[in-house]
Amino acid sequence: MSCVDLNCDLGESFGAYTMGMDAEVIPNVTSVNVACGYHAGDPLIMEKTVALAKQHGAAIGAHPGFPDLMGFGRRQMVVTPEEAGAYVKYQVGALMAFAKGHGLRLQHVKPHGALYNMAAKDEKLAEGICKAIYSIDPELIFMGLAGSVMLEAAERIGLKTASEVFADRAYNDDGSLVARSKPGAVIHDPEAAVARAVKMAKEGKVISINGKEIDIRADSICVHGDNPKAIETVIKLRNALIEQGVEVKSLR
Amino acid sequence: MSCVDLNCDLGESFGAYTMGMDAEVIPNVTSVNVACGYHAGDPLIMEKTVALAKQHGAAIGAHPGFPDLMGFGRRQMVVTPEEAGAYVKYQVGALMAFAKGHGLRLQHVKPHGALYNMAAKDEKLAEGICKAIYSIDPELIFMGLAGSVMLEAAERIGLKTASEVFADRAYNDDGSLVARSKPGAVIHDPEAAVARAVKMAKEGKVISINGKEIDIRADSICVHGDNPKAIETVIKLRNALIEQGVEVKSLR
Amino acid sequence: MSCVDLNCDLGESFGAYTMGMDAEVIPNVTSVNVACGYHAGDPLIMEKTVALAKQHGAAIGAHPGFPDLMGFGRRQMVVTPEEAGAYVKYQVGALMAFAKGHGLRLQHVKPHGALYNMAAKDEKLAEGICKAIYSIDPELIFMGLAGSVMLEAAERIGLKTASEVFADRAYNDDGSLVARSKPGAVIHDPEAAVARAVKMAKEGKVISINGKEIDIRADSICVHGDNPKAIETVIKLRNALIEQGVEVKSLR
Amino acid sequence: MSCVDLNCDLGESFGAYTMGMDAEVIPNVTSVNVACGYHAGDPLIMEKTVALAKQHGAAIGAHPGFPDLMGFGRRQMVVTPEEAGAYVKYQVGALMAFAKGHGLRLQHVKPHGALYNMAAKDEKLAEGICKAIYSIDPELIFMGLAGSVMLEAAERIGLKTASEVFADRAYNDDGSLVARSKPGAVIHDPEAAVARAVKMAKEGKVISINGKEIDIRADSICVHGDNPKAIETVIKLRNALIEQGVEVKSLR
Repeated sequence: MSCVDLNCDLGESFGAYTMGMDAEVIPNVTSVNVACGYHAGDPLIMEKTVALAKQHGAAIGAHPGFPDLMGFGRRQMVVTPEEAGAYVKYQVGALMAFAKGHGLRLQHVKPHGALYNMAAKDEKLAEGICKAIYSIDPELIFMGLAGSVMLEAAERIGLKTASEVFADRAYNDDGSLVARSKPGAVIHDPEAAVARAVKMAKEGKVISINGKEIDIRADSICVHGDNPKAIETVIKLRNALIEQGVEVKSLR
Repeated sequence: MSCVDLNCDLGESFGAYTMGMDAEVIPNVTSVNVACGYHAGDPLIMEKTVALAKQHGAAIGAHPGFPDLMGFGRRQMVVTPEEAGAYVKYQVGALMAFAKGHGLRLQHVKPHGALYNMAAKDEKLAEGICKAIYSIDPELIFMGLAGSVMLEAAERIGLKTASEVFADRAYNDDGSLVARSKPGAVIHDPEAAVARAVKMAKEGKVISINGKEIDIRADSICVHGDNPKAIETVIKLRNALIEQGVEVKSLR
Repeated sequence: MSCVDLNCDLGESFGAYTMGMDAEVIPNVTSVNVACGYHAGDPLIMEKTVALAKQHGAAIGAHPGFPDLMGFGRRQMVVTPEEAGAYVKYQVGALMAFAKGHGLRLQHVKPHGALYNMAAKDEKLAEGICKAIYSIDPELIFMGLAGSVMLEAAERIGLKTASEVFADRAYNDDGSLVARSKPGAVIHDPEAAVARAVKMAKEGKVISINGKEIDIRADSICVHGDNPKAIETVIKLRNALIEQGVEVKSLR
Repeated sequence: MSCVDLNCDLGESFGAYTMGMDAEVIPNVTSVNVACGYHAGDPLIMEKTVALAKQHGAAIGAHPGFPDLMGFGRRQMVVTPEEAGAYVKYQVGALMAFAKGHGLRLQHVKPHGALYNMAAKDEKLAEGICKAIYSIDPELIFMGLAGSVMLEAAERIGLKTASEVFADRAYNDDGSLVARSKPGAVIHDPEAAVARAVKMAKEGKVISINGKEIDIRADSICVHGDNPKAIETVIKLRNALIEQGVEVKSLR
């Protein structure tokens, strides 16, 4: 039987600012990517988010980003692999302390936003990040974009990897994501998105933007918990997966 | 034979800013308190500082402070024990990741600046901090002001403690520090300071500002590495201790 | 005919984080206190908020706070009058640039959160803040707590002042606010709050927590725009004031 | 008689961190670019720096940078022209408040570090910055890289411009800077650098890396005050200019 993980970004609130419907989405996912204070999140939020994940049995991962709270880590910053590695170490270590406080261990690390996008294309940057993760705990799973150089870098460094797919994004023939600027890049119909996700999880296949059936490794599907509609979609996706005989479980 | 630890704040540079003569002072101390990015320090500096400590065999401790880089963590902030605890968890965890990357374990935690001063007098705040430390690793030693409530709080929580003394500060009859605003609070003569430190380490005694000999527990002496003169004093102190038969070694 | 200003904190969003129903509350107030990037707000938000104020004809004031985004400027920080003054200069100047860009001039400055509360009781701190404001533009109006030393300090420095009152807070016999920790400190009944505000604006009187009618100078009433219910209350208050013959207009 | 301005970055300290020999370099320059709190500088430092400039009669300019204190504003960040404009408005406005407090007016704005380098090549970004400056005060002079699109953008927007040259950098035949990564990009011989600067200021000519004499508009020469040797070079340069009949004076 095939199985798949459902991952969601969590703990993105900051101080007096609330973001995301964490309590509503968490019962429906199996892994959570917790913001670590650089692009979002703060120590009190991290404490609360780890407690929430424990309560719901969701596996916890670190979601390190650029030190750019004002830009929510979504803006590219030209950093060296050493800088990226040090930022990742700092943030993963910080989250580990909260996990330990609850008797938990981190399952994975998934870079956030611009750091994710840059590392998906920049082998050296990805290696800087992955070496940092490996040095903290070689058992940590690196979660990255399906088919990208960041997964190759992680494997080269010796990390286990989880290949992440997106239900609502179109893929090129080579398995890369269609750029958001291009027509058809985003699948707006939730039904279609769910069907694509099930196919990826069950068969390891997706229909590319050119109509070709291509291979894709779907260890984890990225879902969102920003708004009520997004949460509905997560529930639909989860139910569809189970109905189609795909086991929904965390990476370990 | 009596023994004592010499501790020094390290890794207080930030980005393009350099502070402290870390490489010069470290051969002369046995424990270092590494800034963790809130009041000073950044991930690249932490990486470098941990490597330096490893190279010199100095025991590593975390030096968490208030999130106030502009004030170098020296300004009191009215936070709850939960906030203080979460800030300490965050910073200690972050430093742990760098230590792990070098195959090292943290020896101790010493709060920085205003957080240290406030926790020395505020039992609830001290407990918030100590619970946080205990939850990460109950073997971590809590370093705090000799005779203060912060050491009592740490012991109540179950942490081992290191009682810190200052060579260049005067003490009241009850073992508390004479406030800096009062005359005679700071011992400006290096010779006198060295002699006082040796007496504290060897006999567990110090002459109070009123001329009384009082008891003081001196597990660790705080030294500074800001300038060439400070480093000279550290070397003199270290030599005097050894000459007087006091073993200079880290806490573990 | 008596008149009064209605002021509301605005522009408290930050980056990807949204706070407050700015567009909903602004048509109902006459002055807005715009966050300036230290405790809340960022340059893009400031730009947008100034444009919104212009569109609705609301007078613009700066709302400088402590450099504590994580604590939303609500935590006391022990700073010198010089530090407070410099922080106020920085933030007021920054907002002025956005106002100038829209051909507008700032009407007032009202310190935020802990800075407001501390300056209401600490004459030296209030003077540091007021000197800073005066040095930038002596025509700026200082908005502060009715009956507090911060208004006296402002007048001593040479600033015009606006005495701020709260519809939903109880007052002691001496005109000071009843501490939030005491029973009866907050008026939870919106009708009662509106009636109190009207009495303060129209008669310059309020019934103290001990039942005494005391004098209070009400140049501006603080209202909130955080949630739909708060906005309803603002509308009720505005209507009640107009009905009772109190003109609602900005300070200039 | 030809004339030229000597400009130097100033006020780059932050909190407890000191950077630059501001007091030593300022008597030798005619314009200073003051850091505004994003990549360096803080309100107390800005206050002190403006006072220092006033004392020495140096013209004051704002030196806005990216919100990246950790990277000293030297790392490229992918921001929109609107974001860049808003960041510039914020920082220029903040500095203006300190200038006003001393009865002074800003002379110019020179973007810092990565913002400067990016705007030198990106017309849209440069326009975003220049529109922001113009909206605050159309009399502000925009200082930018000689021959670059940022000066063209500034002129298109309606700003006066100052064309900045570097004594210690080689130029390509088209007047652009030779990339630092290429051999010969930096002129290490102070005598040669001084001679080049004099030629640029006096004749408006420089010998390119290929040996061609090319035109260059030198309104202001960038000098450094980081270390004693740099300051020596500034003094040599100033003396050489005066000796060669070039008047050294600020832009206005």
